[in-house]
Amino acid sequence: MTLLLIGPTERGRVWSQVFEEAGERMVFGEDAVADPDAIVHIACWNPPEDLGRYPNLKTVISTGAGVDQMPALPQGVSLVRTFASSVDEMVRDWVLMASLMLFRDMPRYLTQAADGDWCAHPPKAASSGRVGIMGLGRIGRAVADVMTPLGFDVAGWSRSGAPVPGIEVYGEDDLEPFLARTDMLICLLPLTDETRGLLSGRVFGMLPRGASLVQAGRGAQLDMEAMRGALDSGQLRGAMLDVTEPEPLPNDHWAWRDPRVIVTPHIAGQTDAEEGAHHALAVIRACRDGQPLPGLVHQKKGY
Amino acid sequence: MTLLLIGPTERGRVWSQVFEEAGERMVFGEDAVADPDAIVHIACWNPPEDLGRYPNLKTVISTGAGVDQMPALPQGVSLVRTFASSVDEMVRDWVLMASLMLFRDMPRYLTQAADGDWCAHPPKAASSGRVGIMGLGRIGRAVADVMTPLGFDVAGWSRSGAPVPGIEVYGEDDLEPFLARTDMLICLLPLTDETRGLLSGRVFGMLPRGASLVQAGRGAQLDMEAMRGALDSGQLRGAMLDVTEPEPLPNDHWAWRDPRVIVTPHIAGQTDAEEGAHHALAVIRACRDGQPLPGLVHQKKGY
Ligand SMILES: NC(=O)c1ccc[n+]([C@@H]2O[C@H](COP(=O)([O-])OP(=O)(O)OC[C@H]3O[C@@H](n4cnc5c(N)ncnc54)[C@H](OP(=O)(O)O)[C@@H]3O)[C@@H](O)[C@H]2O)c1
Ligand SMILES: NC(=O)c1ccc[n+]([C@@H]2O[C@H](COP(=O)([O-])OP(=O)(O)OC[C@H]3O[C@@H](n4cnc5c(N)ncnc54)[C@H](OP(=O)(O)O)[C@@H]3O)[C@@H](O)[C@H]2O)c1
Repeated sequence: MTLLLIGPTERGRVWSQVFEEAGERMVFGEDAVADPDAIVHIACWNPPEDLGRYPNLKTVISTGAGVDQMPALPQGVSLVRTFASSVDEMVRDWVLMASLMLFRDMPRYLTQAADGDWCAHPPKAASSGRVGIMGLGRIGRAVADVMTPLGFDVAGWSRSGAPVPGIEVYGEDDLEPFLARTDMLICLLPLTDETRGLLSGRVFGMLPRGASLVQAGRGAQLDMEAMRGALDSGQLRGAMLDVTEPEPLPNDHWAWRDPRVIVTPHIAGQTDAEEGAHHALAVIRACRDGQPLPGLVHQKKGY
Repeated sequence: MTLLLIGPTERGRVWSQVFEEAGERMVFGEDAVADPDAIVHIACWNPPEDLGRYPNLKTVISTGAGVDQMPALPQGVSLVRTFASSVDEMVRDWVLMASLMLFRDMPRYLTQAADGDWCAHPPKAASSGRVGIMGLGRIGRAVADVMTPLGFDVAGWSRSGAPVPGIEVYGEDDLEPFLARTDMLICLLPLTDETRGLLSGRVFGMLPRGASLVQAGRGAQLDMEAMRGALDSGQLRGAMLDVTEPEPLPNDHWAWRDPRVIVTPHIAGQTDAEEGAHHALAVIRACRDGQPLPGLVHQKKGY
């Protein structure tokens, strides 16, 4: 029962140490695989082209929080995503920062500052801000947990509409009322067939006029040209994006230079290597014991 | 027992309504004063030049959180500052935003964005950030309350060193060890003789190299040239300022255009007019009942 890790050298170093201490077998990089039959788990961001080389493969573990980069896996191979509080908390903090920046008019103040223009606009109390979180998974719930105590009126939207303590939750079919009460739209959805292109002119049109957008899900969920139209018409007031399509965003893309949009280069969160290794160990043990795999992905749903 | 309010028209409108509903007497503006002998309280940001005109004056109420703009008052007149959760929470949110922006490298990402440069730097977990709050009053404590749950290692510094639940507190004489453990210095001090010019080259020199500064106290506490020197030497990494000396910051001031510094035009907080009126009512009633005045300022200490 050996795990094959594919990824950057530094991750290889950390994982090797964690696996050695735990007494579990691991090899780093496909070149180091002496016996493909021994490989039962592969941890990677992008899997090897030829998974058929590993006849005894049971799981593929995405080393990040998302699995949208994964191809369809051979029949019988489970797909797992990494659970890591490190990445959840980092993304939560970036979303909190981005929401506060938009709520407190930072795009406008940054534009004024570039002109040396000291001009105050009345500040708003958090209690007057209606936040709507699309996706109430690990990260969406963590964001709700920190924004509610600040006084924001927080609601969320998820496929199941399953209740989350302390906030109002709208289910898949209630997108319209959810958007109608949302001034600050935060996207923390996984990229799936259902969410690709979801942030469209139609969705922006259902928001109250002058709403803001915080996008920390995946770039392909957002129709950038529709966003530009909504900004131009005043339907949207501003946006902060950590993910774009494509990535890197080309140097000459309009969004870099639009004062209403702030782009960061996909730095909201990053899985801590040691925490990722421990999660992989938990997957290996659960698999051996016939227990449910932590982070198991429903491959049909896509998350 | 009449209160004289001096201030903007809109505040006058709101206060008049609150006072009428409460059955308390109030006049708006000095021109409306028919009988100076009846004036027992004056609520204002800047008091009238000739306070001697009001022989029965008992209190002057600052309509804001600070009193540093107040002149020395005649013997026997109490000075009161407004307690308002509205302003405390707004300043708290601005400080949280500013701290996250510095912690998550926004000055660098904004500079890169201006060049259309997609270049990621490893994000940091809040648990690796040592925050130090100067001033543990209403606002400083509110900031500690929201930054601690994010995982930041929060400490504070105050004159008394009085304990604050959940954080380590350093007293007046322990400025040096407080600064030595602080990567993110937040100033929420009142402006007094002791705090004027406190944020100096000496203080920056006691911080770990590469620390950041969040200034939401009062402009005259910060020596801007010393800050520039500390930024140039790498002792400071970045700063966010909501208050400056002078205000407005002149259009051609270097700080507007320094990519390591972000200035907002004193918009962190603003006292809600209705809440301010209710605080003034509480002062009037306490005064009438011989109870301690809420927000009473120690005029010798200056806060
Ligand atoms: N920017 C970054 O650096 C960064 C870092 C990490 C993650 N992310 C992004 O954040 C996403 C969320 O991460 P997570 O760990 O919180 O995910 P998660 O725990 O899997 O939660 C996903 C949430 O999205 C909801 N959802 C999925 N498809 C939906 C649909 N079609 N309609 C409505 N709701 C739908 C789910 O609803 P149910 O609750 O009903 O299942 C669930 O609430 C990741 O997939 C990734 O795209 C970004
Ligand atoms: N930017 C804005 O929009 C804005 C808005 C509102 C307020 N403010 C600023 O924020 C300040 C703080 O407001 P607050 O309501 O929190 O004040 P506060 O309740 O009066 O608290 C002041 C704190 O500062 C400490 N302190 C005073 N002098 C000190 C000294 N010489 N050395 C060490 N500590 C000292 C006090 O120590 P002790 O606890 O020992 O007394 C106390 O903890 C205001 O004075 C104002 O300057 C800014």
